[in-house]
Amino acid sequence: MAVYTDVTDDELAAFMSAYALPDVAAFKGIAEGVENSNFLIHTEDGAAYILTLYEKRVNPAELPYFLGLMRHLAARGVTCPLPIETRDGQVLQTLSGRPAALFSFLKGLSPRRITAAHCSGVGAAMARLHLAGADYPRSRANALSVGGWRPLFAQSAHLADAVSPGLAAEIDADLADLEARWPTGLPGGVIHADLFPDNVFFRGEAVSGVIDFYFACNDLYAYDLAILMNAWCFEPGFDFNVTKARHLLSAYGAVRPLSAEEIAALPLLARGAAMRFLLTRLYDWLNTPAGALVRPKDPLEYLRILRFHRGIEGAGAYGLG
Amino acid sequence: MAVYTDVTDDELAAFMSAYALPDVAAFKGIAEGVENSNFLIHTEDGAAYILTLYEKRVNPAELPYFLGLMRHLAARGVTCPLPIETRDGQVLQTLSGRPAALFSFLKGLSPRRITAAHCSGVGAAMARLHLAGADYPRSRANALSVGGWRPLFAQSAHLADAVSPGLAAEIDADLADLEARWPTGLPGGVIHADLFPDNVFFRGEAVSGVIDFYFACNDLYAYDLAILMNAWCFEPGFDFNVTKARHLLSAYGAVRPLSAEEIAALPLLARGAAMRFLLTRLYDWLNTPAGALVRPKDPLEYLRILRFHRGIEGAGAYGLG
Repeated sequence: MAVYTDVTDDELAAFMSAYALPDVAAFKGIAEGVENSNFLIHTEDGAAYILTLYEKRVNPAELPYFLGLMRHLAARGVTCPLPIETRDGQVLQTLSGRPAALFSFLKGLSPRRITAAHCSGVGAAMARLHLAGADYPRSRANALSVGGWRPLFAQSAHLADAVSPGLAAEIDADLADLEARWPTGLPGGVIHADLFPDNVFFRGEAVSGVIDFYFACNDLYAYDLAILMNAWCFEPGFDFNVTKARHLLSAYGAVRPLSAEEIAALPLLARGAAMRFLLTRLYDWLNTPAGALVRPKDPLEYLRILRFHRGIEGAGAYGLG
Repeated sequence: MAVYTDVTDDELAAFMSAYALPDVAAFKGIAEGVENSNFLIHTEDGAAYILTLYEKRVNPAELPYFLGLMRHLAARGVTCPLPIETRDGQVLQTLSGRPAALFSFLKGLSPRRITAAHCSGVGAAMARLHLAGADYPRSRANALSVGGWRPLFAQSAHLADAVSPGLAAEIDADLADLEARWPTGLPGGVIHADLFPDNVFFRGEAVSGVIDFYFACNDLYAYDLAILMNAWCFEPGFDFNVTKARHLLSAYGAVRPLSAEEIAALPLLARGAAMRFLLTRLYDWLNTPAGALVRPKDPLEYLRILRFHRGIEGAGAYGLG
């Protein structure tokens, strides 16, 4: 949950006056997103909007990539927050000293208890997202792919064994293996890169919306799918649920068929996807000040996921083929 | 801001099925209230509701007093959250193991920058609230009035000087004076007891709603007014704004005239009102664990307010008479 920045009455009124919208009838900070401050706005006509203030972890120079992508995807039928244009055609303004944008409100609920049906829904939604983003003209490198992991680890390595004995050596060995074997030549394009259940809305078993595109970038499609599988197919005790994985992967493949090379690469990509979240969570665990508004997540959850993928024989373990 | 308890899909569906309402279309944790978890619900017909889960600081045995009061006040024209009845006529259910209630959604915005016009609005709103509550049949003692302060202080006294040198002796002397001179015989009834700007919604300069009745109790009306004056009439640097106080007190008096005894007692009541928040904030300051979701507020702000009221000659300093 996150509201890092308060907004005064005058600042809000000045911000909203740039849009061709009715007056604001209600304004509430909401517990959505961990990187930015988010507010729900109701206007006098009963419509709802989300106001996002971009806090310091988002690079303002990258906002046109993210906002343009949301408009691009929305125009191609992907239900995602649509950045609202001001009367002057702008989607980015300044509010309380921060970049800020107003978005359409998406109906739907994030699932708390994941079912196989949810996994089918989100697998197909990711494939549609990949197809819809294929002709997006901008590009953004993925700073959190294989080339970024070692520099990231270097900031935590000296403290890793204090989190869990032997962790530093285990990460080091896995990194070496991942760096040596990371696939090239697989199909890629725009990926979401953070499609956790918090970022997907459902109405019943159908996906009604996808949010939080602030890790989106250009990378391998199958890497995005590996992130997705890790986020959706492990049970609370970190047992892998092969039924959920089969639903997720086959629903994806029904919309965008996976090549034999992509399927063969999935175990390594899934290990890498686990490494990415292990490393960022480890960094946050060691660097979140006491009293912060957002509690850091346990990095060792992703160590367990990484070990699972390291230990399997091949993609057959995911229920494929 | 506060969402302490997560609610699963199944739990939410079971909870909502007790009401004669359309299906849930959206469900978001909101940053409102510090004692409880609050969620905004949109139903398929576009209506909005607030769902409150009562966390451990609220005594479940007292919920009927609070919920009954809101229904009582709403029936008398005070715009406050109306507890929605289930098909069986209940206003209190259980959700995620906690008492929970569903409320009507109030339009309006809490003011961030307080103007004299806001003070007029909230002064009149408090007087209307006092009049509307006069025939509420239930009663609840105020555990945070003069009799409760010394036991509360006893839990922090040994650490008070670590917060500010000399603080323990200063509080002790003020407590003795307040206990000796606390007024009796002034008019009383149901008071809100926590009417801070966060708990009042405006549309323009008019009050559109009052929320958060979980400190409501039976006590002196003028004590509630003293809490209000402290919360609304000090500038960010803790200078007292006599113009705001005059607006607030005269707007109150225009709806419910203040007696000469109430006016004469105001400086002592305002000192006591400052003591009440100084003591609860001091306790929270010393007892909030690192990493808590809610940051404790600075107790010394209320020490400055207490000193202001201790130093004045009489209620004339508030712009009265």
